Amino acid sequence: MPSSATISFARGAPSLDIIDVEGLRAAAGRAFESDPAGATAYGTSVGYGRLRAWIADRHGVEPERVIVTNGSMQADAFLFEHLVSKGDAVIVEKPTYDRTLLSLRTRGASVHAVELAPDGIDVDALARLLEGGVAAKLAHIIPNFQNPAGYTISLAKRRRLLELAAQHDFTIFEDDPYVALRFGGEPLPTMLSLDPDRVIYASSFSKTVCPGIRVGYLVGPPQEIAAIAQLATNTYISPNMVAQAIVYEFCASGAIERSIETVRTALAERVAVLADALRRELPEARFTPPEGGYFMWVTLPEGTDVGALHGAAAERGLAFVKGGDFLLAGGQNTLRIAYSGVTPEQIDEGVKRLADAYHSL
Amino acid sequence: MPSSATISFARGAPSLDIIDVEGLRAAAGRAFESDPAGATAYGTSVGYGRLRAWIADRHGVEPERVIVTNGSMQADAFLFEHLVSKGDAVIVEKPTYDRTLLSLRTRGASVHAVELAPDGIDVDALARLLEGGVAAKLAHIIPNFQNPAGYTISLAKRRRLLELAAQHDFTIFEDDPYVALRFGGEPLPTMLSLDPDRVIYASSFSKTVCPGIRVGYLVGPPQEIAAIAQLATNTYISPNMVAQAIVYEFCASGAIERSIETVRTALAERVAVLADALRRELPEARFTPPEGGYFMWVTLPEGTDVGALHGAAAERGLAFVKGGDFLLAGGQNTLRIAYSGVTPEQIDEGVKRLADAYHSL
Repeated sequence: MPSSATISFARGAPSLDIIDVEGLRAAAGRAFESDPAGATAYGTSVGYGRLRAWIADRHGVEPERVIVTNGSMQADAFLFEHLVSKGDAVIVEKPTYDRTLLSLRTRGASVHAVELAPDGIDVDALARLLEGGVAAKLAHIIPNFQNPAGYTISLAKRRRLLELAAQHDFTIFEDDPYVALRFGGEPLPTMLSLDPDRVIYASSFSKTVCPGIRVGYLVGPPQEIAAIAQLATNTYISPNMVAQAIVYEFCASGAIERSIETVRTALAERVAVLADALRRELPEARFTPPEGGYFMWVTLPEGTDVGALHGAAAERGLAFVKGGDFLLAGGQNTLRIAYSGVTPEQIDEGVKRLADAYHSL
Repeated sequence: MPSSATISFARGAPSLDIIDVEGLRAAAGRAFESDPAGATAYGTSVGYGRLRAWIADRHGVEPERVIVTNGSMQADAFLFEHLVSKGDAVIVEKPTYDRTLLSLRTRGASVHAVELAPDGIDVDALARLLEGGVAAKLAHIIPNFQNPAGYTISLAKRRRLLELAAQHDFTIFEDDPYVALRFGGEPLPTMLSLDPDRVIYASSFSKTVCPGIRVGYLVGPPQEIAAIAQLATNTYISPNMVAQAIVYEFCASGAIERSIETVRTALAERVAVLADALRRELPEARFTPPEGGYFMWVTLPEGTDVGALHGAAAERGLAFVKGGDFLLAGGQNTLRIAYSGVTPEQIDEGVKRLADAYHSL
């Protein structure tokens, strides 16, 4: 590729080559053929019935515990509207997804960020915070291949979090869009499966089907789901039935399993190439290669000005997101690399540009 | 049809026989073939570029004046979030769409309902209200084949409204989902076309393509659209690109013109059957047959208890919406009949049941 074209390590989106476009086209055809009335009508705010049932079955719960929405960000928005009022204390991971931070701060939540380690949130620090009198309403946790850090919370910490939630009476918001994209290590049980009445679980088909289909969902206690469904009715009557019928057909045919395998294989290769390139070109970088997902967190030596690095990289045709964007404060020597949207060749070239930018500082 | 099956005059939704399912299936195939990257990626919150441009062209405006959303209810929600704060005065028609009323009241708006006549809102009453000191922020107007009344505002009243908006500095929210469904009389210019900087215009493909596709849009001043796009980004990143690409292909191929013709022809027949049946079976009913759209407003003799009629109709297998649901108060002797989702045979049978219920009171 020409070195003049910008390489993006910034956007957490898949490259087109790992999307099953032909499978989607076929699923769309089947959606209109097999259920024209259901796909074209308004439907209701809980989502397309067949997809709702498929998701419920996948999680081993009753359909009453599921609402299917226009992407999982919209699901988050409804959940926050339902549960979080101005001044309510909300726990987040440090670092965490920038859009979640913005959404919580816009609602006027009192956001408490608790340090994230490679095996998950610091549960002892969280316990001290709660014992110190922070009456948390909600804890937002991205359990698998976290955005932005790429870390996965251990089983022991999952159990400890549930204990703390029961003891201090808060809800765990288990935000899990990357769970299917594991390419190494052993899968861990969801917190939802460990305590279905203490957890509201969110996931999405953006990473397993495609982002443009905008289908996400929540699983939680029936009364919470019913309250959120009422908010959804008042906001948009119903979510996209055509898109949800397409996703249902894609899932029911088994295309989703093939799609997940394609994505996993590609991401495993990309993260290996990324780690090798960083070790070779930029040995100053510290990182924990993730076992799945889209993102790797990189820490540069103390004192590195990643703001300046971002500018120097842009001059060299490389984009990434500064670590500070995922934090309430600090993180000046960190960055997030998204490897989901770049080929192995682009990764090699991108890391060269990153190293060159670093050495120019 | 068996008299036991419920006939619904309640829901403003099209029957499946007037939806071009085969055209949609073909459009979906083309969407994935002609622009796989655009249809499957996140895109941005202003919507799918080709559809945005098509809509802009249709209204003779720059694309910067258009945002395409997940249905027009979602567009309304963004617009109200942007423009209407707690306590702000908002003008609505009396009667008006029940979901709009609910949405405005939930936001804490001070809602002022101004009487609607068969030729549109009472502009003299509105002028008196404004002169009396009501500092309106927004006036919500459904100009064509109004929901629930079926009425259309005259050109003279459109112009007068724009004068009042300029004089008292408020925005007109021209909510126009039914405009394409005119089957009689002369089309009138939109208020948007008369004063593009005083009006924010909303419409939708729910009535011309299908509701389940959930694609709506706003047209307005570029700075207002940009502010709403930011709210949309923060809420759901981007709307459904797959659905918008399907709508684009449906429009670009000309299928939409055939679909509109199908819908118009069917609705014209249905409203004629409805008016005849009412004159025959329930001569006590007063109504103005609409020149387009989905709805007809029916006034029964003073003192009729439409709440009781609703129950008596339900016992006979007929559903409709009480007029009072579209009003802040009053309307006890009125009802809305939606003829969009019923066949001529069902209309005849439904009116018989309505008359029977009326005579049972």
